[in-house]
Amino acid sequence: MRIFKYLLLIVVLAIASQAFAQTDAPAMTDDEMVTATDIFFDRCAGCHGVLRKGATGPNITPEHFANDNKGLPYIKAVIFGGLPGGMPDWGRQGILTDEEQDLMARFVLNDPPQPPTWEFGNIKDSWELLVPVADRPTEPQSKRNWENYVGVILRDVGKAAIIDGDTRELVTVVPTGYATHILRSSKSGRYFYVIGRDGKASMIDLFMDPPAVVAKVRPCLDARSIESSKFEGFVDKYAVVGCYWPSAFVVFDGLTLEPIKMVSTVSYVKGAGELVQEARVAAIVASEDSPEWILNVKESGQTWFVNYSNVDKKGHPLDVTMIDTERYLHDGGWANQRKYFIVAANAENKLVVIDPATREFVASVEAGVKPHPGRGANWVHSKLGPVWATGNIGSPEVTVVGVDPEGHPDQAWQAVERIEMPFTGTLFIKAHDASPWVITDFTVSSNPKGSTSLCAIGKESLKVEKCWEVPGAADIKARIVHIEFTKDGSEFWVSAWANKETPSFIAVYDSNTLEEIDRITGDWLLTPTGKFNVYNTANDIY
Amino acid sequence: MRIFKYLLLIVVLAIASQAFAQTDAPAMTDDEMVTATDIFFDRCAGCHGVLRKGATGPNITPEHFANDNKGLPYIKAVIFGGLPGGMPDWGRQGILTDEEQDLMARFVLNDPPQPPTWEFGNIKDSWELLVPVADRPTEPQSKRNWENYVGVILRDVGKAAIIDGDTRELVTVVPTGYATHILRSSKSGRYFYVIGRDGKASMIDLFMDPPAVVAKVRPCLDARSIESSKFEGFVDKYAVVGCYWPSAFVVFDGLTLEPIKMVSTVSYVKGAGELVQEARVAAIVASEDSPEWILNVKESGQTWFVNYSNVDKKGHPLDVTMIDTERYLHDGGWANQRKYFIVAANAENKLVVIDPATREFVASVEAGVKPHPGRGANWVHSKLGPVWATGNIGSPEVTVVGVDPEGHPDQAWQAVERIEMPFTGTLFIKAHDASPWVITDFTVSSNPKGSTSLCAIGKESLKVEKCWEVPGAADIKARIVHIEFTKDGSEFWVSAWANKETPSFIAVYDSNTLEEIDRITGDWLLTPTGKFNVYNTANDIY
Repeated sequence: MRIFKYLLLIVVLAIASQAFAQTDAPAMTDDEMVTATDIFFDRCAGCHGVLRKGATGPNITPEHFANDNKGLPYIKAVIFGGLPGGMPDWGRQGILTDEEQDLMARFVLNDPPQPPTWEFGNIKDSWELLVPVADRPTEPQSKRNWENYVGVILRDVGKAAIIDGDTRELVTVVPTGYATHILRSSKSGRYFYVIGRDGKASMIDLFMDPPAVVAKVRPCLDARSIESSKFEGFVDKYAVVGCYWPSAFVVFDGLTLEPIKMVSTVSYVKGAGELVQEARVAAIVASEDSPEWILNVKESGQTWFVNYSNVDKKGHPLDVTMIDTERYLHDGGWANQRKYFIVAANAENKLVVIDPATREFVASVEAGVKPHPGRGANWVHSKLGPVWATGNIGSPEVTVVGVDPEGHPDQAWQAVERIEMPFTGTLFIKAHDASPWVITDFTVSSNPKGSTSLCAIGKESLKVEKCWEVPGAADIKARIVHIEFTKDGSEFWVSAWANKETPSFIAVYDSNTLEEIDRITGDWLLTPTGKFNVYNTANDIY
Repeated sequence: MRIFKYLLLIVVLAIASQAFAQTDAPAMTDDEMVTATDIFFDRCAGCHGVLRKGATGPNITPEHFANDNKGLPYIKAVIFGGLPGGMPDWGRQGILTDEEQDLMARFVLNDPPQPPTWEFGNIKDSWELLVPVADRPTEPQSKRNWENYVGVILRDVGKAAIIDGDTRELVTVVPTGYATHILRSSKSGRYFYVIGRDGKASMIDLFMDPPAVVAKVRPCLDARSIESSKFEGFVDKYAVVGCYWPSAFVVFDGLTLEPIKMVSTVSYVKGAGELVQEARVAAIVASEDSPEWILNVKESGQTWFVNYSNVDKKGHPLDVTMIDTERYLHDGGWANQRKYFIVAANAENKLVVIDPATREFVASVEAGVKPHPGRGANWVHSKLGPVWATGNIGSPEVTVVGVDPEGHPDQAWQAVERIEMPFTGTLFIKAHDASPWVITDFTVSSNPKGSTSLCAIGKESLKVEKCWEVPGAADIKARIVHIEFTKDGSEFWVSAWANKETPSFIAVYDSNTLEEIDRITGDWLLTPTGKFNVYNTANDIY
């Protein structure tokens, strides 16, 4: 009978997993489990998921290794030496010790510990309003050109630095919690929203002198994305955090970070597959043409349009349009003057094109191996018209896509050019109208020369015109990562990401000559990664 | 450190639950677990949930009993004698034997077996298109007045009977699977959609002679609701099934039941509470003013508007507006010419009023104890204007609510009358414009006289004008349940729900004189419950 069959199945599975755990899983002490859980969260969960079912990286559950007959020696070797296509060489780089490599190999052959719950009550309890709105200044308190401030993530020390984009002077360093991930500007530009990989969010008021954190909250235990409401009438009104764990998004008051509503993203793969408990929210963009955020649910391959225009009404109505796209959605940005949104489905080596006006899934474009656009790069080519480009982690290619179906239908949603690059491992690509170049990094290249180099692609030639190693990066074992332009686009800045004991630098380049014109340094400049110019971030210029 | 704390917590909880299970849980054999799981599904899960966290009935997890120091003897006593407010007296009624009562008492002191998964692949595999659309007749093949057919649920034998509402002759009996729950008519009236408590759905073509099942599918393992798309341009185009387990809804092609998309309803309580894995879809209604279904997510206290107008496009876009209302949402229907939707939150003894035009949560109205409206009863009172009424399971009251804020603002969203009834246990209430009476049953009354009686309330007097015991019901240990009017409203029919070995009857009453004018009988008439007139169901007349 029905229930009988299921119950048998459950019993059998239970016994099977028991048996498996008992016979094949290497022994670990409780202390080792704790240490391994922390290391996994820091180094592995982003790509493999806390439940280890895979996303940007493959499934690495004990069952998976058992099916593939891949045991301890194989796993240790991969942890030491990495794999083509993105798996870092943790051992060879000296980031994990021999003991830690052995520990992690044993850890992944044991069942993952169930991640803890984190619910609205926890979020409310974590909320701290440090400076009420009434106590904040009504106009900028400094003579500095705050719209050209650059917020710099000091990733591994859990801080954000605010640098004056005009003078390149440090304005202030703000503690933002462990494992800071990205900054986003509120539409007005006045506030920087910060999100950490530990799910801690904070907001910095740039009108204050010096700028300071005015509110903090912890929406989740693991997060990557935060965004502001940008539609007319909702400027700076709401904020949203996309959580990795628990799999959900949380809507906040944009001026205080008081939590308003929590929505689970637990969902079925493409609306027709397995139920994913770990369905993490990756990239979020805010529309300026409608009161909506576009959220990307990584594991279930769904793009969600979230309309916040009624969320203040009784019952907090929230309108969510769910579109099935591709797996695993990661990062992306606007193309062709925000007419389209393009997001990478990096496990399927595809780019997903969404039309925000009609909320339609327009097309999938073949990228290279594991595309990683950040928000991508936009420019207009004399013949091809408006194009958008991404780099790829797993192949030496910049993929250039035609994004103008009206004006250039033949090129639309095609890879109009696949530019061969000298290295793999590109994390970021950036452009600005004031520069003839498109700049890429190779941050996770397994070639040390690659991870310290930059390349410039000609916007017209669609060829690599110049590549260079950033002097001094190798000496401090730094990787060159992330490009950002200043407000007027005359300069671009790149970070040298060293370990957290080593003061590092930001190199400043002339965006026309490609000459290094300055270098920002200081004891405070530890593990710089992403950089966010207030004006460019508030207005989605990239 | 953060993760360390959580891990400790998890370990502690694990040990605690282990310890609990070892010390307090009465022993059960595998066979006993299987039997108990089946009985629980049939008799208990509807109100308490498969995870036993409670809904219409209270939380009955082992932890709950442990905290309340309620052990085996208490639980046995309740299973035997029931409780006021809805818990049936399974023992006293002789539905569960002494052994079964003891078994179930021990079962609920053991952790619930994890319910099995059921995903899109299972649904696709279960789909059977018995008669393709092209092979179906283009017009009714019988001379009968099919718009006055009455579909009768033969609940415990897993069948549906089609009866001619003009002649009261049996047209046919259709097998619809184990534990048939309700019928709904497609907007055109041509198709009956059937859903079983075992999650099996089927559709019956009334143009065929005799009417027959043309398609079958199993969306879930446990379900209660099914509905058709009723908006202009989408007549009979889509169907939706609201699942209890897994907690989800599934959209189907309305002519073939081919599955299109599955959406999880796992959600946070009122958008600000705990994450509920068992978030079951209760009542569904279809709007005729927009391409939407209104779904009610019981455990999370959310009402979802599901817009199906784009679901055929690439990526199957589905638009879901989530409103936080009250727990635990159960059943409900349209009020005041479909201007408002009213649903019972029966654990909070409230009625939730939703405005479908603005998608707003308009009001909560205090009902009696455990309101259970079915779809409710609508009529117009000379002074109070349009009203809507519900019965209550747990108190002897019919609650009459004013539903015309424009014309009668003083009465709007108030209990304008609380009519005292002779019994508790009302499951259904029904009205029709052609009758001066509102009729109620008392199906789950603990008083045997109540469970075999009907009452008639005067639409103008708002008083109980007549109550009577249905002759012959007690003799066959039947409960009188569910009222349905014929198309012209000149008659109403009620079911005598006996056990499945006992041929029973449907009593037919004159809807003005309240005299019994006929009785439908037959060997085939086993466990009749809900009755659905094609015209009234297709047009939401109640």
